[in-house]
Parts: sequence; structure tokens; C-alpha cells
Amino acid sequence: MDSQTTIPTEAYQKIQDYFGDRCSRAESVCLQHGRDESPFPVTPPELVVFAMNHEEIIWLVNIARHYLFPIIPFGAGTSLEGQLLAVNGGVSLDLSRMNQILHISPDDLTVTVHPGVTRIELNNQLKSYGLFFPVDPGANATIGGMCATGASGTNAVRYGTMRNNVLSMKIVTPQGVIIKTGSQAKKSSAGYDLTHLYIGSEGTLGVIVEITLRVYSLPESVAVAICSFPSIANAVKATIQIIQTGIAVARVELIDSNSVLFVNNYSKLHLPVSPMLLFEFHGSDTVVAEDAERTEDISLDHEGNNFQWVTTPEARTKLWAARHNAYFAALQAKPGCRIISTDTCVPISRLADCLLDSLNEVKETTIPFFLVGHVGDGNFHFGYMIDPNSPDEWALAEKLNTSLVMRAIEMGGTCSGEHGVGVHKKKFLEAELGKSSIDVMRMIKKSLDPHNIFNPGKILN
Amino acid sequence: MDSQTTIPTEAYQKIQDYFGDRCSRAESVCLQHGRDESPFPVTPPELVVFAMNHEEIIWLVNIARHYLFPIIPFGAGTSLEGQLLAVNGGVSLDLSRMNQILHISPDDLTVTVHPGVTRIELNNQLKSYGLFFPVDPGANATIGGMCATGASGTNAVRYGTMRNNVLSMKIVTPQGVIIKTGSQAKKSSAGYDLTHLYIGSEGTLGVIVEITLRVYSLPESVAVAICSFPSIANAVKATIQIIQTGIAVARVELIDSNSVLFVNNYSKLHLPVSPMLLFEFHGSDTVVAEDAERTEDISLDHEGNNFQWVTTPEARTKLWAARHNAYFAALQAKPGCRIISTDTCVPISRLADCLLDSLNEVKETTIPFFLVGHVGDGNFHFGYMIDPNSPDEWALAEKLNTSLVMRAIEMGGTCSGEHGVGVHKKKFLEAELGKSSIDVMRMIKKSLDPHNIFNPGKILN
Repeated sequence: MDSQTTIPTEAYQKIQDYFGDRCSRAESVCLQHGRDESPFPVTPPELVVFAMNHEEIIWLVNIARHYLFPIIPFGAGTSLEGQLLAVNGGVSLDLSRMNQILHISPDDLTVTVHPGVTRIELNNQLKSYGLFFPVDPGANATIGGMCATGASGTNAVRYGTMRNNVLSMKIVTPQGVIIKTGSQAKKSSAGYDLTHLYIGSEGTLGVIVEITLRVYSLPESVAVAICSFPSIANAVKATIQIIQTGIAVARVELIDSNSVLFVNNYSKLHLPVSPMLLFEFHGSDTVVAEDAERTEDISLDHEGNNFQWVTTPEARTKLWAARHNAYFAALQAKPGCRIISTDTCVPISRLADCLLDSLNEVKETTIPFFLVGHVGDGNFHFGYMIDPNSPDEWALAEKLNTSLVMRAIEMGGTCSGEHGVGVHKKKFLEAELGKSSIDVMRMIKKSLDPHNIFNPGKILN
Repeated sequence: MDSQTTIPTEAYQKIQDYFGDRCSRAESVCLQHGRDESPFPVTPPELVVFAMNHEEIIWLVNIARHYLFPIIPFGAGTSLEGQLLAVNGGVSLDLSRMNQILHISPDDLTVTVHPGVTRIELNNQLKSYGLFFPVDPGANATIGGMCATGASGTNAVRYGTMRNNVLSMKIVTPQGVIIKTGSQAKKSSAGYDLTHLYIGSEGTLGVIVEITLRVYSLPESVAVAICSFPSIANAVKATIQIIQTGIAVARVELIDSNSVLFVNNYSKLHLPVSPMLLFEFHGSDTVVAEDAERTEDISLDHEGNNFQWVTTPEARTKLWAARHNAYFAALQAKPGCRIISTDTCVPISRLADCLLDSLNEVKETTIPFFLVGHVGDGNFHFGYMIDPNSPDEWALAEKLNTSLVMRAIEMGGTCSGEHGVGVHKKKFLEAELGKSSIDVMRMIKKSLDPHNIFNPGKILN
């Protein structure tokens, strides 16, 4: 241990005695736990602990309270804003081995899981009950991580985000006790809404150790369509009209022509290289047919062409995999690059303005980029593909991001639709909500975690 | 002013100078502000102030911080758990004159309002835009009050509760500053979820001074149906199957035969005196027809009879008015009575057990009662019709309520589906969530309102 350590030898010894071989200081393990999918430099913790149950976590929290070292909850490592960097050292608390699905209640359309269960594993288990969990951020994140980040993704336009789909959680608090944030009832007005307080809290207020989610019956019918547009403006305007018409589209995703190019190469597809919308519809045969027909009509009104149905499950899966792989396809397209992903979300009436102004701005530079978006929600992501060794490219990408965020805030939007704050968006929170709102967040943090043990340096300074 | 006063003469003088004739100590005004729709004894504030804007509220909060007297935000006075009783004296802050609709954005399906706008007034204004706000607790509550209570009602089964339909709020905090809790974007992961913290906080953490709500396009087609059942068990079982089948019913309300009797008398109707379900369907003609047909099939499978369509808007309105008037119809049926309303909500898989066991329990007593329920959400209300001058009837009603709440909690449910906690449910919170969860709520309250100025004695002791 070097002079930067926050974990005294005595504490380390106790932790090692308690966790045995589920406790590691190996460099490779620490490096793996000191990064996420963001481009920020790896900042490893001093120690990684793999917990199996909440009793172990309570024990660890009590040690951390005594010796005052940080705890950083870790799921799958797929966050995008530096949420997992051990900026103040301390212990990375890996929850991936707490991966049991505890209870599935088809009658209540709920499921209770440990935090380390991944999204894909959950859906694999739900399938045999005719159920699914719709929140889909692309990455195979853990459910605990998705709660902590306030994740959403492609299905949110119809099914909502994590904020809409968590009924209740169990949390180990910074006081070293376990609490439940709510009941199993579908709705409640019983006291302060602790469930929502913890969704999006990014591990700064405690550790999520159990989650009860809403799940949904697999739709009788699923249809997927793709449609090319002559410009991004046309695609966005079609989206806005589809949403405003009240069509219950399950997914409506924009991918720009750069993304199509990357994805064609990466996934061996032959999509026409122009901006596209990908649609998905869920419901009975009748409803899906009706929704799809109205969507096609609106798309054609906005000069959409090549409106194509993707009918087989295999073709659907391949197309969505392509969308989800846009990020990795871009990484492959410029070897050695890293991606700074923007995450603004604006009211849909301002989507065209915000997106097109930002697009013009990035086009005036030489930076390679791609653009994808959950446009039905007003949420879109530029991926600036930078050389991580080029300070100029970093600076340019950050400048573009700042300009975009300020434009979105000006339009009533948010700096983060779904990726959270981490270390990267802290500077924007005050611009978005005002100093007094951040002061209230600080008061909450200070009252629940007075020693700033939990994931320090994230969300708030 | 008597010896119980919390407002020193000096403070009173300042308030009177500032608010002029929008400040009253008149007994009738204070009595009117010291009660709600609950049966609890009137507990008047010392002073009532009618605010016109948030600057006045900030001024008042700063006076209250200096002289340390309570502030109790007041909307329409329609709460049901004693939320408005001035149990520690202080000022009732009447917000009913802050009743402007500030902005309607049909493109974004949002509306921004002052807290004193009532639900019915809002819907009157929205209608000309082809929009509506679905949350409908029955009473013509203010939007501010509905946020503070975490209200829901008949439409929640499809459109969700206040928790699902508030995008953002402005709050005057106990520090005497105004904050915004979020942006106007449809979704966000930017920091702690202050919006949800304030929904259901019952005026204990500050004053809601502006709200941005989601609104919805008026459905192309609306259909209402009623169906009688031989028993409550049959009606409940039909409901459970309808929900589990995934039919997107907009409303499914149970009314028992007592309610039908009262409502027939009160509203001059001729409904068959047996347990009934009232259904409403929203959507395109095709979707409504499909949903309604499936609902009728399931109802008939559970021995439903007299399945009748109510087709004209007038007939629909009359029927829903009857449902909403069940409370007042019961009051009329036993002159001089007051009603203790229960508000448990359980997972729908336990609804039949919880409701039927509780029904048997009340039937074993001599207490007059009625039973209505938002059964699609697992939420139901017994109304115990007590003589407020009979300590025995009070005690019996409270005993039945306690037994029901404990049964619901045992089944994973909540003591309050939608009425909130007020003074009445405080004793149940710990049973429902555990002492440690309540401790977390206390820490939040103490950090945001260290002098316990805001609506003291509500939610928490």
C-alpha cells in the first residue's frame, strides 16, 4: 500500500480475515474495478471485495464507518460517466456474485432480485413465465447498477425508465442498517418516497441489496420496422409527429448515416447508408397492425423511404443488436479511439432545434462522430470518437459537449437523460437546476452519509 | 391570542402589515382551515394567510424561521388523514388564489400550473387543446394538494398516480429559497430525484409553488360499462384476471351493494343492488372494442350479469359522478355520521384474501359501512360510518382499520394507497417499513427543516 491509502493495515487485515479469497488487492482486479465504459483514466480502488449477501455488506459498512474509507458499489462496470472511479481510493464493493432471482410473481407482474442479476439473465429467466423486463440500456448492466444510475434506453418511450419500474428496494445505509424503501403494493402514499431517492443516487447514499421490479407480459405480437430518411431533420420531425399523435410505439430509435456505416461493417449488414428510424410495436395483432400503419403513413409524409418490416425473431434480434452495437462498431471503426458520449434530453417540441443545431456545430469540426437517439423521449447521444492521447481532441469533444448541454438546458432539458452524473456531469448540475437545488441535494447527502463514505466525488463535489 | 399561540404579537403585526386583508384571524376562517374531509376534530391555525405568489411565501417562510412558528400549506381542504390540522398552531398558508395555468404545451403533452389550480378547472382548460389530466381522486382537489398527498384515484390503473405524472416542481424550501426539482425533459438522471421526494411529503419539507404535469391526448374513443356480480368475491376475481391478462383498462372500480343503495338514493339512479364493477376503456375505436370485448368475456366467466354499455357522455358522467359521490351519499344515508375511510393497497395476487377477510370482519360488527375500490391497483376503501359522538363507534372503527392495515402489511401491502399519512397513519409507518426506514425519513426531515416549521406532527412524530 502506498501513501495514498485510505485503508489502514488494521482494517485491511480485518477485511481479509472476514472475506478471505473474496477480497483482492491484485493489480489486475483493482484496475478492472477502477474503470467503466467512459473514456476517463482508470482510477483503481485500493481493494476489491466480492460480497455474497447483505450481512457481509453491513459488516463492511461498519468497518468503513470506523476507519473512514470510501466504499464504491460495483455491478457490471458498464456506466458511462466515471461513476466507478475510485477518486478518493477505498474499497470497490463488487456485487456481481449477489445474482439470485429471489421471487417471480406472474400474478402481480413483479420480480424480486439481488442487485448483481444482469438484465439479460433476468429476461432469460422471465421468458418461461411469458414475462419480460423492458428497461434496456443496451449494455448487459446489472439491475442494481441500472437502479443506481436511473437507467432507461430503447423501450422507455413506452414502458418508462427505472424510475417508473422499481416498486421497492432494500438498501444498506451508511449507518450500517438495512432498510426497505417501500412495500410490494403497486402504489403507495406512505411517507417520503425513499425508493425514488435511491434511484439515480449512484451509490452515494448506500448500497442497493435487493430490488422489486415491475415486469410485463410478453406482447402477443411484436413488429419491427426500419425506415430511411433523406435527412436527420426529416427523421426527427417524423418522430415528433408519431409521439404527438399518441401512437404507443414501443421503441423509436434514430441512427445517423455514420452509425449505419459502422454498424454495417461491424455486424455484416447491408442497411442503406442514410439516417434511419428503427421502430418496434407491441400489442395484440390488431393493435400492432393499426399502430404500424399509422407510423408508416407519418414516415412517408416526412419523405421516409424503404419502410421495411423485419418479421422473423432472428432478423429483429440482429437489427437491435446492430443498434446496441453502434458504440462498439464505432470503436472498431477508429482503432484505439475512445468515445465521449453525450446524453442530453429535451422536451420533444425542442428536439429538432437542439439536435440539428448541435449537429451543425459538430460538423464544423473535424472530429469523427456518430449520433443515435431514443428520440421518442427527446434523448439523443452524440459519440465523439477521440484519440485519448490527444489533449486537443479531448478538449474539442468536451467543448462540443458543453455547448450541447447548455443548449439543452436553455431549452428546458437536462444534461443527463439516462447516463447519470458520475464525475463528468457534476459541473452541469448547477446550470441545470440552480445552486439552491444542489444545496438541497448536499443536505440530503450530508444527513444520510455524514462522513462521505459512499462513492465520494460522484454527483456532488 | 391565547396562551397557546406560537406567533408573537410582533410577528403577527409584520404579517398583517405585509398581507393586509389577505391575512385573517377570524374564527370562521381559522375553523375552515383547521379541518379536512377526515372525521378528526377541527384544530384551527392561529392565522390564515392567502398568498398570491412565491415571493410572498418566501417572505413568510423567513418570518417563520425567525419566530419559529409552524406553516401549514392549504389547498382545497380535501385531504382525508388530518393533514391540515394545526396540531402545533401556526399559520395556515392558503394557496387557492395561486390558481393560474401558466403554460400549456400540446406538443410536449405538458402543462405548468400554480398549486391552487383545481383538477376540474385544469381539465376544463385542457379540453380545448384536446388534452386531459388523468389523475382523479374524486374530490376537486388542487394540483398542489394532489402532489403533496401523492394522490391517485380511478384512472391510476392505466395512467399512474401523481408520482408518475409530475415532471418537475418549484418549491419554497424551509431555508426560504425557491428551488426547481427537475427540468422539463421527459426523463432525467441528473442527481437526486427531488421531484419524487416532494410528492407525498404533505407540506412537511416546504411549499409547492409550481408544478409541471404530463397530460394526455383525449382518447379517440371512450367506452364505459357496468356489470353486476353475485358476490364481491366474484367481482374481485374478475378484476384480477382482467389485470393479469394485460387489458389496458382505464378504470376498474368496485362498488359494493351498500354503496349502490346509497348512490341510488343520492343520485336518483336505479342500479341493481348488488356488487358492481364499473369499467372505462380509452383508445381508438378498434382498441376500445377489443379491450371491452375481452373484459366482458372475463366478467361473464365470473358470473357477471347485466353487463351494460353506457354510451352517451351524459350517462357516463352521471355514472362516474355516482361513483365519486359514494362518500357523500353515505353521509346522507346516516345523517350526522362521519366516515373513517381506510386506504390499504395490496399486491393484486392478495387482493381477494385481504378484501374478503376484512369484509367478513366488519360484517361481524354492527357498524354501518360501504366498500369501494380502485381494485385494478389492489387499492380499496372501507368507509366506516360512525357517530362522531360515540367513543365506542370510533374505537370500533379504529380497531377494524388497524386490523385491516396489519393484514395488508402482512401481505406485502401498504397502509396508504393514496390518502397519505397525515396524523392518522403515523402509527402504521413503522409496522410497514421498519424503524430504520422511518429513521432515514427523520434524517431527511431534520436536515431540510431543522426547526420543524413545516406542517409539524404530520407523517413523522
